[in-house]
This record gives sequence, C-alpha cells and structure tokens, in this order.
Amino acid sequence: MQRIEAHASHGGVQEVWQHRSAVLDCELRFGIYLPPQAQAGPCPVLYWLSGLTCSEQNFITKAGAQRYAAEHGLIVVAPDTSPRGADVANVDSYDLGQGAGFYLNATREPWSRHYRMHDYVVDELPALVEANFPATAARAVSGHSMGGHGALVLALRNPGRYRSVSAFSPIVAPSQVPWGEKAFGNYLGEDRAAWLEWDACALVAGAAERLPLLVDQGEADEFLATQLRPELLEQACDAAGHPLLLRRRAGYDHSYYFIASFLDEHFAHHAQALRRG
Amino acid sequence: MQRIEAHASHGGVQEVWQHRSAVLDCELRFGIYLPPQAQAGPCPVLYWLSGLTCSEQNFITKAGAQRYAAEHGLIVVAPDTSPRGADVANVDSYDLGQGAGFYLNATREPWSRHYRMHDYVVDELPALVEANFPATAARAVSGHSMGGHGALVLALRNPGRYRSVSAFSPIVAPSQVPWGEKAFGNYLGEDRAAWLEWDACALVAGAAERLPLLVDQGEADEFLATQLRPELLEQACDAAGHPLLLRRRAGYDHSYYFIASFLDEHFAHHAQALRRG
Repeated sequence: MQRIEAHASHGGVQEVWQHRSAVLDCELRFGIYLPPQAQAGPCPVLYWLSGLTCSEQNFITKAGAQRYAAEHGLIVVAPDTSPRGADVANVDSYDLGQGAGFYLNATREPWSRHYRMHDYVVDELPALVEANFPATAARAVSGHSMGGHGALVLALRNPGRYRSVSAFSPIVAPSQVPWGEKAFGNYLGEDRAAWLEWDACALVAGAAERLPLLVDQGEADEFLATQLRPELLEQACDAAGHPLLLRRRAGYDHSYYFIASFLDEHFAHHAQALRRG
Repeated sequence: MQRIEAHASHGGVQEVWQHRSAVLDCELRFGIYLPPQAQAGPCPVLYWLSGLTCSEQNFITKAGAQRYAAEHGLIVVAPDTSPRGADVANVDSYDLGQGAGFYLNATREPWSRHYRMHDYVVDELPALVEANFPATAARAVSGHSMGGHGALVLALRNPGRYRSVSAFSPIVAPSQVPWGEKAFGNYLGEDRAAWLEWDACALVAGAAERLPLLVDQGEADEFLATQLRPELLEQACDAAGHPLLLRRRAGYDHSYYFIASFLDEHFAHHAQALRRG
C-alpha cells in the first residue's frame, strides 16, 4: 500500500492511497480524510461513493467535505468508481466499464473477473481501513448519482453493516432507466430478475432492517426524469413502510455545486448515527 | 456577453460568463457567484485572482467559497489568469504566456498587445460587473500564489480602489525569485527598475494608502523558500511601517486544500471591510 498524496486540510490530513485489491484483481486508489480527532483516537468512517466518470479525486477536491468531517470527527473514505488498468475490461463509453462500476458484482464476461465493486466497498476496503488507520468499525455510506445508487443498495443488502445511509441524486431504480439497463444488461446479463438484487426500489420491499434513507434531489437536475426518478423510491418506500426523507431542492442541478450546498446536513445526519452508542 | 454556466449553489447561483475584452483584445471567461442577498439588492464584490496554470474554473470548483459568500452576502468574481485564444502569444511553458498573465501590463513583444491583465482586472472587469450585475462599487481583492501577488500589487498600486486585500501563498517579491524573473524579463524587458512597479515588496515602501495586508502561508509549501519568501514582505512592511498580518500555518502546502482550510477567515476579513460605511 502506497501513499500517493498527503495534504493538510482543516486541521487534519487528506490522503490518497494506492493498493493491490484482491477482490478487484487490480491496483486501485482511494482518498481518505483523517480529521484532527483521529490523532487522539479512532474515529467512525463515512464511505463516499462517486458517480459516473469519477475517480477518487472528484469528491475530495470539489465537495468541501473536509470541513464537515473535521467538525464532526469523521474519517471519510472515497474509493475510485471501478477497477482500473490496461488489463481491466473496458469500452469507449462513459457509462460502462472503467469509471462506471455500479457498485455490483458482475457475473458476465468480460466483466466478472474485475468488476466486483460491491465486495470491494463492503468488505475489502473497510477491512483495510480499519486495520491501517485509526478507524472504528462504525460505518456510514453516502454517494452521488451512480454512487447514490451504490449507497442505497449497499445499505439495503447488508443489514447491520452501516449505521446510516444517504444519497444525492441517486439512480433509485436502475432496472427501469437507461443507465441501469445498459450497465446491468452487460454486467449481469439479460435475465432481469437478477437485476433486482441491485435495485434500491426492489430491495426496499424485502429489507431486513428499516434504516432510514436520506435523499436530496435537485429539481433542475438534467437527469431527473430519465435516469433518477425519485418518485419510484417514494412509491417503493410507501408500499414497504420503509422510512424515507426525500428532499426536493428547487433550482439545483446534478453538479458538485448541489452536493456542496447540502453536504453539511448529510454529515450531521451521519455524525448523529455514528457517534451514537 | 454570453452565459456559459449557471448552477444553483448555497441559495445563490454560480455562473460563468464569456465576453469580448477590449483591454485584452480577446474573448475571456470569468466566474461570478451571486449570493442569495443579491436577489434583494446590490452586494459588494470580492475579486479572486488565481495562480499559474489556472482558469476561471479552479477557484469556483475547489475552494468552497460559495458557502462563505452566501453567509456574508458577497459577490465573488474570479477571472481567468491571462488572455486566451489561438491568436494570443503563448509558449510551451506553465509559467509564461497563457495561464500566466501575472496581473501586469506587458510592454514587450510579443506580449504587449494582449497581456494587460492589470487594466482588465482593475478597470474593465469591475465596470462590466457593476453595469450588468447587482454589484455595488465596494471592492475587495484576494488571490493565490501568482494571484496573491496580483492581489497585493493591485491594491498597492491603486489606492482607494479596494476596501481590503488578502493573499494565500503570494509571490511577494517577483523581482527576486525565478517565477517573477522569467515572467518580468519577458513581459517587461531586462530593465529591472521597471519590474519594481509590479513587485509588492517594492511597492510597500511608497504606498499612498496603508491598507492592511492579510497573508496566509503554509509552512510545508513546496515553493516557500524558492518562489514565495514571505520574510521579504515582512521586512518591507517593517521598514515602511505598513500593516501586515502574516500567518504561517504549520503543515500546510501550496494546494487548494490549504486555501479551503482558511478561506472562511479571509471572507470574514473582507466582509467586515466591505460592509462598512
């Protein structure tokens, strides 16, 4: 494991590390912010999952997260969004292949060898973080767009694993929208029943744990009607009796300007859950 | 004048505009953040000058400035760092030509036609902003590295023009360091006496107005000893009796992680001056 970057930030340090992932069978990078409180003892960890085309850099450079992490004493881990490298399957497309891992375990060729982001984010990365950094086992998960889908799906599939979950502009029903249909068709094959294991709207119905879902969605988001469709999550949560706090924000788009505007509220939400008990 | 981008942000809007600059004789872009208070009436303006290699994008995407601008009701204008375009003189170098305007008026060929960033930032851009946006004539200036040099020089050369000035990691004595020697030698020629009109340490001695200089400098800055040399500004201000608040920040480097960590204090400083009287 090799440290690629280290920058003092808000009294703590923003680092970027590269390591060999056994699960992904490639080298991968992640950002980790260690707040000032981590110098005195272990801190809980918020995992942030980024969207299509992103690497570990986008969130750590654009969201202003370090200020809130320092305020609440949270470590923030931001992995890359897919396996990477010359020998990792890829296509010339922003919404499939490298940069578009969709936080699932692929079952179809040529994807199944490397594209196992679910297991990487849920198991391998926390084990690495908790063994090598001053991190407790208290975990939260959040993300944006494809990463908002990832946050919801990881929390719904893994009861007890996360203390809290939130999302900005998530793809809530990938089985029903073009981004998800393309990705799932390639990564999981044409059997749509298999897709439902990776679809937040489908998972809500059978969720073993009623972890409240906090979701922020911009009403001027250019992908709102075609790819995001938050009303489907509202309907699924209503039907299942699953707690959902969906906030529609007038005028906001899909960009990091939106995330940065409301990230403080997400950090407060996660800090409350992570600092509990 | 054409609006290129508009994003809701912290209750206001972050925009990017492109216009034809008569002073620079080219098209140029600038970012402008309009805080929520600008919907009710005119607001004062903070001009932010970015460093080498930057465009209008770096500060608006990486610094987290919108939160503080919204808090204090300040408009923030962030111009590009040099004239741009295929017919604008350039060299294959990160510290000369496009992206490296140094906020001066060039006198030598091939630079003198377009490289007039001083007049652009001091005169043309504020006139444009004050005519087209809900901006008052109360102005402040700040910047980073080459832009920190720009902020100090513009304030020192133009008494009465700015209510307040601050800088992160500024090039305080360009006449005495490699970045400045290269740029000034090209833009201004070999007569070093002419350089002193664009050198904060030299200008302090004859400053007609004792505007306090607020400067933050990281002690782990990789350019500290070779290019920045804040001790020269300390000595010049001591000798001239010019008020300087220089804060050396242990562990911080030259990056936007440093700027983002202390930007709230600079905004508070400017807001106090801009909201006065």
